[in-house]
Amino acid sequence: MENSERMTVNAIRILTADAVQKAKSGHPGMPLGAAPLGYALWGREMSHNPADPAWPNRDRFVLSAGHGSMLVYSMLYLFGYGLTIEDIRQFRQLGSLTPGHPEWGRTRGVETSTGPLGQGIANAVGMALAEKRLAAHFNREGFPVVDHYTFCILGDGCMMEGLSYESCCLAGTLGLNKLIALYDDNEISIEGSTDLAFREDVPARFAAQGWRVIDVADGSDVDAVARAIRAAKTSDRPVLIDCHTVIGYGSPTQGTSKTHGEPLGEENIAGLRKALAWPSDEPFFVPEEAFEAPRAAAARGAQAQRAWEELFARYREAYPEHAAEWDAWHSDALPHDFLNDEEYWAAEKPVATRAASGRALNYIARFLPNLFGGSADLGPSNKSILTGRGDFSAETPDGANLHFGVREHAMAAICNGILLHGGLRPYCATFFVFSDYMKHSMRMAALMGLGVPYILSHDSIGVGEDGPTHQPIEQLAGLRAIPGMIVFRPADARETYAGWLAAITEKHPVALVLTRQDVPLFEGSGKEALRGAYILSDSEKPVPDVILIGSGSEVAPCMGAQELLRQQGVDARVVSMPSMELFERQSPEYKESVLPAAVRRRVCVEAGSPQPMYRYAGLDGRVVAMESFGASAPYKVLFPHFGFTPEHVASVAQELML
Amino acid sequence: MENSERMTVNAIRILTADAVQKAKSGHPGMPLGAAPLGYALWGREMSHNPADPAWPNRDRFVLSAGHGSMLVYSMLYLFGYGLTIEDIRQFRQLGSLTPGHPEWGRTRGVETSTGPLGQGIANAVGMALAEKRLAAHFNREGFPVVDHYTFCILGDGCMMEGLSYESCCLAGTLGLNKLIALYDDNEISIEGSTDLAFREDVPARFAAQGWRVIDVADGSDVDAVARAIRAAKTSDRPVLIDCHTVIGYGSPTQGTSKTHGEPLGEENIAGLRKALAWPSDEPFFVPEEAFEAPRAAAARGAQAQRAWEELFARYREAYPEHAAEWDAWHSDALPHDFLNDEEYWAAEKPVATRAASGRALNYIARFLPNLFGGSADLGPSNKSILTGRGDFSAETPDGANLHFGVREHAMAAICNGILLHGGLRPYCATFFVFSDYMKHSMRMAALMGLGVPYILSHDSIGVGEDGPTHQPIEQLAGLRAIPGMIVFRPADARETYAGWLAAITEKHPVALVLTRQDVPLFEGSGKEALRGAYILSDSEKPVPDVILIGSGSEVAPCMGAQELLRQQGVDARVVSMPSMELFERQSPEYKESVLPAAVRRRVCVEAGSPQPMYRYAGLDGRVVAMESFGASAPYKVLFPHFGFTPEHVASVAQELML
Repeated sequence: MENSERMTVNAIRILTADAVQKAKSGHPGMPLGAAPLGYALWGREMSHNPADPAWPNRDRFVLSAGHGSMLVYSMLYLFGYGLTIEDIRQFRQLGSLTPGHPEWGRTRGVETSTGPLGQGIANAVGMALAEKRLAAHFNREGFPVVDHYTFCILGDGCMMEGLSYESCCLAGTLGLNKLIALYDDNEISIEGSTDLAFREDVPARFAAQGWRVIDVADGSDVDAVARAIRAAKTSDRPVLIDCHTVIGYGSPTQGTSKTHGEPLGEENIAGLRKALAWPSDEPFFVPEEAFEAPRAAAARGAQAQRAWEELFARYREAYPEHAAEWDAWHSDALPHDFLNDEEYWAAEKPVATRAASGRALNYIARFLPNLFGGSADLGPSNKSILTGRGDFSAETPDGANLHFGVREHAMAAICNGILLHGGLRPYCATFFVFSDYMKHSMRMAALMGLGVPYILSHDSIGVGEDGPTHQPIEQLAGLRAIPGMIVFRPADARETYAGWLAAITEKHPVALVLTRQDVPLFEGSGKEALRGAYILSDSEKPVPDVILIGSGSEVAPCMGAQELLRQQGVDARVVSMPSMELFERQSPEYKESVLPAAVRRRVCVEAGSPQPMYRYAGLDGRVVAMESFGASAPYKVLFPHFGFTPEHVASVAQELML
Repeated sequence: MENSERMTVNAIRILTADAVQKAKSGHPGMPLGAAPLGYALWGREMSHNPADPAWPNRDRFVLSAGHGSMLVYSMLYLFGYGLTIEDIRQFRQLGSLTPGHPEWGRTRGVETSTGPLGQGIANAVGMALAEKRLAAHFNREGFPVVDHYTFCILGDGCMMEGLSYESCCLAGTLGLNKLIALYDDNEISIEGSTDLAFREDVPARFAAQGWRVIDVADGSDVDAVARAIRAAKTSDRPVLIDCHTVIGYGSPTQGTSKTHGEPLGEENIAGLRKALAWPSDEPFFVPEEAFEAPRAAAARGAQAQRAWEELFARYREAYPEHAAEWDAWHSDALPHDFLNDEEYWAAEKPVATRAASGRALNYIARFLPNLFGGSADLGPSNKSILTGRGDFSAETPDGANLHFGVREHAMAAICNGILLHGGLRPYCATFFVFSDYMKHSMRMAALMGLGVPYILSHDSIGVGEDGPTHQPIEQLAGLRAIPGMIVFRPADARETYAGWLAAITEKHPVALVLTRQDVPLFEGSGKEALRGAYILSDSEKPVPDVILIGSGSEVAPCMGAQELLRQQGVDARVVSMPSMELFERQSPEYKESVLPAAVRRRVCVEAGSPQPMYRYAGLDGRVVAMESFGASAPYKVLFPHFGFTPEHVASVAQELML
């Protein structure tokens, strides 16, 4: 290692220590220990261009141990990504470019938001998966237009999370040989030595999952780390580089959990400066020499991008159709006007909304061939299979159907990674109740604003015989409470098509919540569903006696109740409400036209937790919902058992008339 | 294997096929393939007494692959647990003892509810953990009063779930040598061959996690399986028995995913009967011979229980104090009147509610020494450590502090297993935002009615600098929507004590949602919090102009707003609402006294999703809540930024006065 490189590595450490100290908050231990890993990547082995962080064929970098955010911020500053020393000083302050954990979309050069452990490595798996598929699809002899690595740094925390096992197992199964993970193996977690809770043979674990493992005895040795990375680049399997590091390297408290998650303190920082022979005591001072190696790396990266651009220009000439397809795949614009395509909206008979979803998905795929997804081993049930598009596997990397295995959490996190990579439109599927397992990755999608569609079938007690363990109750409430998540629970086939249209246009994740069982096809349903709620069947009077509000399979009992009430002399309006989030976006006038403030007799019907519907029921209305878990029985027994019948809804409405 | 045993094994298969056929729904493939595993356990190696399924020292059995419920129901019938052939005929019907997936508390002999994959094996780890701790605590030379195995059958689905890796890694780390898992290794999942998504070397994986692995080449060979179990019993590590089985064994469709999750059909069932040389074509007919071996096993089990009871009687004589302690640990009754203990309720100054929780936990532990729990590597932050009680480890199995590692999901599932085992009071802890990772195990606790306390600190934007990835928003709504879950978000130290009192008395899981930051100590707070909501500071008029409703750290801005409003001539009542679930249990009169229906000017304040509070705000009130994700900044900056100040709350109340 050259002296200037040593200076760069130490600059990462010093900036980290100073920034955490100034913020009085943060995690210095990881960046101090892993600075040589970061530098070996960014300074030596990674192909990246600070002047254009979005260049399609760049190597991807994910800091799965997101609490070590100062590692990334220090490097973004040193390598010239546009972050200034003032930004570093503003670490963890409101509105700064240097928040507590890396945030995609906020800070140039950050490839994904990380912090919740395990998410980053799974995102990296998704990125490597996207690279493999795109390479298989676009590359031609002599034209490796998709040809990059995905690097990830992860620590013991990520290692312990089930999510990392799930995603790494899939990476091994799918032979993602251009995925290279660097393990910051410092043997310390918050409660003390990892020996307390983690005595796993990590190299043996990764070997069992189909990875190659390379050991780096001294993770502070940049040359050794870089050598290992070069060796990893030629592997036919994903690679784990096990870097033995020292948490808090250089601080008098190094090697202890004390350095993990709090400022080192002035005294230890002085000790750090001394141990590193740092040339200045001035906080945030970085000598010019520390920028030398980063500048050279940036120049190499700019050159690599130019070379790729020249390659791509020749590709465009040699393969104009492929290049056009490339452009289409890398565009957010819809290539087809689904909204005005009558065939798209065609529906003839009562079907399960999961079946309607399967039709919509395959219809859309005719126009969006970069749809890429699958299910957590429930494809046939979720109706999530792309007909005739082949399976993705190590041997068939141009297939469009992913088999995620029984790994809901990894599935959702991998979809985030695929979308972040660019070029593909990921989606995924499971039973609605198991959205629980993938909840946090769905949250991350919402936080980042990633438009991943989730196909969540078997959406209520309609599951039937599988019983309470498989019947969602609280999941609707839980997902609706996530800021930026759009939950769409269609009442029939046409509403399902509306839901899919939202799913492929929104810059938000969209949860499509679908029935297992057949539901009627309602006259007048369709595009209006894109407004979130609409009058499906109005009262005869301009101001209804009562409003019945339902979603999904509970719109049918509302419609039946309307008819019963009519016979009883009560004039009801039925509002179908597939998406509260889309409804809340509408104008006050539209909302008032659907749910007039003056009409307080309201019955809300949904076979889930009552919680979300109180917003529309108010103190004077009633909510017919699930007040308990479900039960194992045929669904035609369960709906009456739990009160989701026209008769019961009508009787509740009648109580309001008293 | 004797002929009568073969008959028993085949009876499991026939009953399964017939029951699934009659129900027109269910999963025949697994029980057909794994019947020899079930029989090798129940008929040969497992110590169990059908006449007393609750005998404390019985071996535990968990069917982690819960969809194979007919394996268990068939055996419960054949071994004489009280299940009748009519119960078998009622498979998957409303109210039957044979629901779609095994339900603890419904069917005698079912040790835990399973179905959601991975939960069962983690429950089994919890049971084995409980056994190890209780054995270390109670056993004396010559008195192995706690000395049993925990058996589990799991399939490929469980294997792929991150939860199984997490829990098995901890089992290996903690040296749970009396845990024996039988792997139903049939190489088929719903979407087809496991090769599609799961090419892991499972034996190598378990070896890496500190397990011993035994291979059984022919899983249909009861003798071979039983031999492997006997070998496993002497291991110094947990053991995985890899049983190579054939899904749908005996059906003409065996070995295919078609047998997994739907009835075999009359034709295949006829083929099955022929292949097994079954003596009758009559559905549900079981020849007498098939009961012979189970009867013998039941007799051995009864004898084992008698021997243990004799041993325990001698133990009670030799160690009367230990026996008394045993009785106390195995009782649900509280040994102390916390409600009327003034010292318990003592509080002097503003503290973070996580700190108050740490005090309460340790106070309670003086009287409940069988408290047993810990954190997912955040003990120091969660204030969840039992002072002076030692760490639980392979070497120190009498320690009370568990180190779960960064494994939230396994932590919660293991706590379910510990509680189900009996003898110990588990609890667990993490940051509130990471309750997402353990959500489904919390749901299972609610479904079973298991009183596990969850310590969930860092409960809002009060997290501060760690930023939006670490700031819970939707988690309050999500947990409150779970039927049977009690969410308790205390406003100060005394309310926290109330929350803990609920946590140790309820037959429901209780989520204690706690601040990172200091909160005031309010005059008049305390025991009233057990009613879920109460008037913390009343208006001067009997009917207030406006009601301010808050929970947790947002009670303080409500109190401040009341003061401001008073100065402005508006007479407000402040209601502290730590638990909506406990409040909804109160009498209509009490509820009316706190929140009079006539007072429609209501402002609800909570730094989380607005969803839950609409129930109390109604159409005329207002909810001051988080309408977006949070941000990275000091919490004292964030609360004003997002509107949680007395000034903002007062101004919203003033808008209602117009």
